[in-house]
Amino acid sequence: MYRVYGMAESGNCYKVKLLLSQLKQPFEWIETDIMQGKSRTSEFLAKNPNGKVPTLEISPGVYLPESNAILCYLAEGSPYWPADRLARARVMQWMFFEQYSHEPYVAVARFILLLLKQPNHPDLAEKQRRSHLAFAVMEQHLAKELFFVGGQYSIADIALFAYTHVADDGGLDLAPYPAIRAWIEQVKAQPDYVPIGD
Amino acid sequence: MYRVYGMAESGNCYKVKLLLSQLKQPFEWIETDIMQGKSRTSEFLAKNPNGKVPTLEISPGVYLPESNAILCYLAEGSPYWPADRLARARVMQWMFFEQYSHEPYVAVARFILLLLKQPNHPDLAEKQRRSHLAFAVMEQHLAKELFFVGGQYSIADIALFAYTHVADDGGLDLAPYPAIRAWIEQVKAQPDYVPIGD
Repeated sequence: MYRVYGMAESGNCYKVKLLLSQLKQPFEWIETDIMQGKSRTSEFLAKNPNGKVPTLEISPGVYLPESNAILCYLAEGSPYWPADRLARARVMQWMFFEQYSHEPYVAVARFILLLLKQPNHPDLAEKQRRSHLAFAVMEQHLAKELFFVGGQYSIADIALFAYTHVADDGGLDLAPYPAIRAWIEQVKAQPDYVPIGD
Repeated sequence: MYRVYGMAESGNCYKVKLLLSQLKQPFEWIETDIMQGKSRTSEFLAKNPNGKVPTLEISPGVYLPESNAILCYLAEGSPYWPADRLARARVMQWMFFEQYSHEPYVAVARFILLLLKQPNHPDLAEKQRRSHLAFAVMEQHLAKELFFVGGQYSIADIALFAYTHVADDGGLDLAPYPAIRAWIEQVKAQPDYVPIGD
């Protein structure tokens, strides 16, 4: 059985929980509180030298870190990972967009407000400004498409949904983005959907 | 024939040039100077709404952005993209590590010194500090492994080589990392290697 080292509030960790649920794969969740330094202990660094969650234990002693790499691994052979070469590349395009142009702003704005509880943090305004640049790119795409790639729900949607649907926690208002809001409802309507943080 | 919109000095763009060379694929390079705003014109934004290079034109009007997604697309069916499921996931693990924990520091330190020419930039020291955290993770891995995944040169190596081998441009000294330096020489010794910036 898979074992997931993760923190319940983390969107990156939630991606893995959501996909495993949708794949109907049983898993054990090891709550790993980064706020208490649990991802920086020598015991955890032996599992993932980069000291981050989620980390998936595939089989005893075999660890895979990086949320989106875990999604790719788990989704192989499922409907959530397209068979077509260009469609697969587009899934990766959006997953790299998420980790480079979205998560460092949307997730960090949320981290500052929800976990650090520092509404006057000096970085917050810039994180929010750049979050809106990412949302604008997503909105432009979703205005023409039901999902991110090929009209079908895939791990690209899971990756981008994780922090977008809780953007409000980072003081980010999705009201200007009707296509994003419609897409969020589509994702929530998928079979075996589970909410974040449970 | 593939067309690459890229900037010669960019490590992200260089990744695509290096892999295409090693795949012996002819390509046309469209120099796109981000310092002159060439990736933010309405003409370019129609190709990639996120306004970044590299962007690959696969066939007329079909564009793929995100350097590491381009590597995945081009490497399919080649020795640079492993066939084994876990090995492929590990390639993605290191490519996501590169875009999240490495490039935003190593590439940005270089950008500040090489392109902005601002040695007193307020962000430089922090970018350099976090670059060394990424190098430490790489060094620990390469102390036991010849390449990043499965003992074989892959697109994970290309992704991490791009900015690591020019770390000096960002004021980053690789002297403390003998395994990284040995790996750089291994990459440079690969067939059809081409240098950055030509």
